[in-house]
Amino acid sequence: MTLTKTPAAAALRWARRHVLDIDDWSRAEIEAVLETAGAMVEILGRPVRKAPPLRGKTVILFFAEASTRTRVSFELAAKALSADVTTITSSGSSVEKGETLLDTVRTLQALGGDVVVMRHASSGAPYFVAERSDAPVINAGDGWHAHPTQGLLDAYTLRAALGDLHEKRIVIVGDVLHSRVARSDIHTLVPLGARITLSGPPTLMPLAWRRGELPPCVTYEPDLDRALDGAHGVIALRLQKERQEGGLLPSLREYSHVWGLTASRVARMRPDAPVMHPGPMNEGVEIDAAVAHGARSLVETQVTNGVAVRMALLYLLVGTPLQEERP
Amino acid sequence: MTLTKTPAAAALRWARRHVLDIDDWSRAEIEAVLETAGAMVEILGRPVRKAPPLRGKTVILFFAEASTRTRVSFELAAKALSADVTTITSSGSSVEKGETLLDTVRTLQALGGDVVVMRHASSGAPYFVAERSDAPVINAGDGWHAHPTQGLLDAYTLRAALGDLHEKRIVIVGDVLHSRVARSDIHTLVPLGARITLSGPPTLMPLAWRRGELPPCVTYEPDLDRALDGAHGVIALRLQKERQEGGLLPSLREYSHVWGLTASRVARMRPDAPVMHPGPMNEGVEIDAAVAHGARSLVETQVTNGVAVRMALLYLLVGTPLQEERP
Amino acid sequence: MTLTKTPAAAALRWARRHVLDIDDWSRAEIEAVLETAGAMVEILGRPVRKAPPLRGKTVILFFAEASTRTRVSFELAAKALSADVTTITSSGSSVEKGETLLDTVRTLQALGGDVVVMRHASSGAPYFVAERSDAPVINAGDGWHAHPTQGLLDAYTLRAALGDLHEKRIVIVGDVLHSRVARSDIHTLVPLGARITLSGPPTLMPLAWRRGELPPCVTYEPDLDRALDGAHGVIALRLQKERQEGGLLPSLREYSHVWGLTASRVARMRPDAPVMHPGPMNEGVEIDAAVAHGARSLVETQVTNGVAVRMALLYLLVGTPLQEERP
Repeated sequence: MTLTKTPAAAALRWARRHVLDIDDWSRAEIEAVLETAGAMVEILGRPVRKAPPLRGKTVILFFAEASTRTRVSFELAAKALSADVTTITSSGSSVEKGETLLDTVRTLQALGGDVVVMRHASSGAPYFVAERSDAPVINAGDGWHAHPTQGLLDAYTLRAALGDLHEKRIVIVGDVLHSRVARSDIHTLVPLGARITLSGPPTLMPLAWRRGELPPCVTYEPDLDRALDGAHGVIALRLQKERQEGGLLPSLREYSHVWGLTASRVARMRPDAPVMHPGPMNEGVEIDAAVAHGARSLVETQVTNGVAVRMALLYLLVGTPLQEERP
Repeated sequence: MTLTKTPAAAALRWARRHVLDIDDWSRAEIEAVLETAGAMVEILGRPVRKAPPLRGKTVILFFAEASTRTRVSFELAAKALSADVTTITSSGSSVEKGETLLDTVRTLQALGGDVVVMRHASSGAPYFVAERSDAPVINAGDGWHAHPTQGLLDAYTLRAALGDLHEKRIVIVGDVLHSRVARSDIHTLVPLGARITLSGPPTLMPLAWRRGELPPCVTYEPDLDRALDGAHGVIALRLQKERQEGGLLPSLREYSHVWGLTASRVARMRPDAPVMHPGPMNEGVEIDAAVAHGARSLVETQVTNGVAVRMALLYLLVGTPLQEERP
Repeated sequence: MTLTKTPAAAALRWARRHVLDIDDWSRAEIEAVLETAGAMVEILGRPVRKAPPLRGKTVILFFAEASTRTRVSFELAAKALSADVTTITSSGSSVEKGETLLDTVRTLQALGGDVVVMRHASSGAPYFVAERSDAPVINAGDGWHAHPTQGLLDAYTLRAALGDLHEKRIVIVGDVLHSRVARSDIHTLVPLGARITLSGPPTLMPLAWRRGELPPCVTYEPDLDRALDGAHGVIALRLQKERQEGGLLPSLREYSHVWGLTASRVARMRPDAPVMHPGPMNEGVEIDAAVAHGARSLVETQVTNGVAVRMALLYLLVGTPLQEERP
């Protein structure tokens, strides 16, 4: 049985305590997670979407920054594996009373949390917690730093669409400077063999990268049309509209004109090259509505795969191994 | 077994994809839901209030407008049927980041939602979503337009109290103009044979209705005492206190004096004619405390029946049929 | 089997309908709950932390005052016993629409709540509700009045650390005047044989107590050093920083200097005498960081035991008795 053997086999090749960033993962580790996610996609396709490996375990969702899709994705992933889930947001919690981050997390663990899923506005916050924590910590996005589950779900989605990513060229366009998604996508896709072309305004590109000091297999092409020519896929980043007030952008209209994904630009890529976006989208700014909801768009598929990838990580971190079913 | 046969039989006569309004339902459809709700009342009376038909299904509660009783009612209904439930409110969600309604709902479905229960301040929002949705949508109240589950639970409660509603006269008193409850009550009770007498200030009555252009089996009687004379039951509507500021009311005190349900007014109805209210009540405004909590009040019964009616709809939309129990 | 017999035996000695305060409990009742909590600690130590006694029951958490640890503690306690849980907070609920407390609670019960766990800023609110309620009410903290589950978890923690509390002297230091924790600790620890020494600023001590009119087995010693000399344990209370603005304190710095728990002060107690705090802690104010996280600190143990104590109460109030396991 593919389903039941795969996760057990993957667990042998993946033995991390926390999921903080992908930057130090091996290709084998990334592939173990993607393989396990494939088994979870199969569970999600069943009429009864429920498997027992986290029964009696508690997953704590600690979201100190607003989020819908990531929070709900983890919640549904945990429940599909039969975990109990409790959610803490900063509003209405002791965090408002001035409690330190460390005390909050120590309390959550003393309450019986088996895994802490954590989103925080400060880069590095999940590292700080993980160093002082008995329970595994999953980074659900920390400041501009990392969003590892987004990297993994994007990799899963691209592999499902394109097959082996060896020498496939993926464009990432937008505000790379402030994007934890861009960083985690690079750290996940490059070890799988992909080449990355970054595009977007120079003011929204890390200084060293703009100057050409780029990581291996990554290039920067400010002209989006050229970047897209012959590409195998594109990931548009969400533009935080407040960047404009910060003086990093002339106007949303100009941004959209020069770096927005339009149907004609998308046509420069290879036939069927997919269009992705981490959401929520600013339609009419970084992506046109026709592209966002067009035939090449995998935006909803990304969301669906996100649940499977998060199930895979929860399973690998704290799940009771799925038993091999008898033939 | 009454319990196990009834829902299955009802499902044969009820094949809707969404629950948006009752205005186009047949009497047979309404009765199929009420019959199923009866089976659910039986489940709720058991020592272990838990049945399996939604196991492995996910119910998404998307409440873009504040609510306690309707949200909790759907939540407990879904959990009693073994569903997983996730709640999205507009505060603290991507809706705050300016995400469009459609993108939010597409995301919720891509996350794996089997049913979307939706409350929204804009009339028609659930229609807009349902047209673009794979998953069933249940309207949990949209603007002034409709609140179909309230109509159904009021019908269930009245039938349990009065038996067949044929030629029974029910008074609905208050701010009919802005009331989705009044509209849904009319659309549910009239097909079941009831006659409706509306009462309340002319300024809070739809213009055409005030002029006498009323739907079939509905009349308008501005004098509440006359409306109540010999009636079989009364439903008081919640008065939104902000109507007064809008100049539609002279004062709450005057409103209460002329259109408030007092014990002496209630005595004008037939013996034992029930008093209902969708809650939350403004005691001392549209209803006196003695009436609200008196012997004729079915306010708490309405709340209890609301859970059963919502279980019935969830069951009919996405439930795995309850198996017939062996004798 | 210790586990399965204990709760059943305890239930014979504990027959309350509500948990509102400990002030009228007998020693035997307190011990029945602590014994049951011991059985729950055993369940929480299992690989699958899940027991069936509240399956099909609904626990309603009604938190009209912000809280994280108490809310989550009850939530996880209820889920570990297989209950369904729904949470109502005052923000975003009908409480905002001006609904009365009584109507809210009647509605929650009509919705099917088997137990209502209630936190409220007004002292006595849970009594008001319990008198009018069919379902059991657990007070999760009401104003300055009582926090019975905190008293019970502190007693459980001290007994686990010190054994029999007979003639053990426990110091409670801080803002006793406004502390429901101090009151509930006294009402739980004194019947178990402990003697209490209160310490803290006279302005933050009830007037009668400051004058020497103290309850049995309780003394007041304003000099913290003297209070700690030879004590068996200390409970530091959280200082509400807004007390300073109210003119009851000269400055946080002075407070910390005179009544803060430092390592050298803690050393005045007996060897291994534990340090406790209900959390969240103001480190550097009422407790130094080194003490808060030092070897004698039981702060995290208190949190863990809190889940067990709350499981015990839920079990005793509405649980289906755990069956005796076959040997």
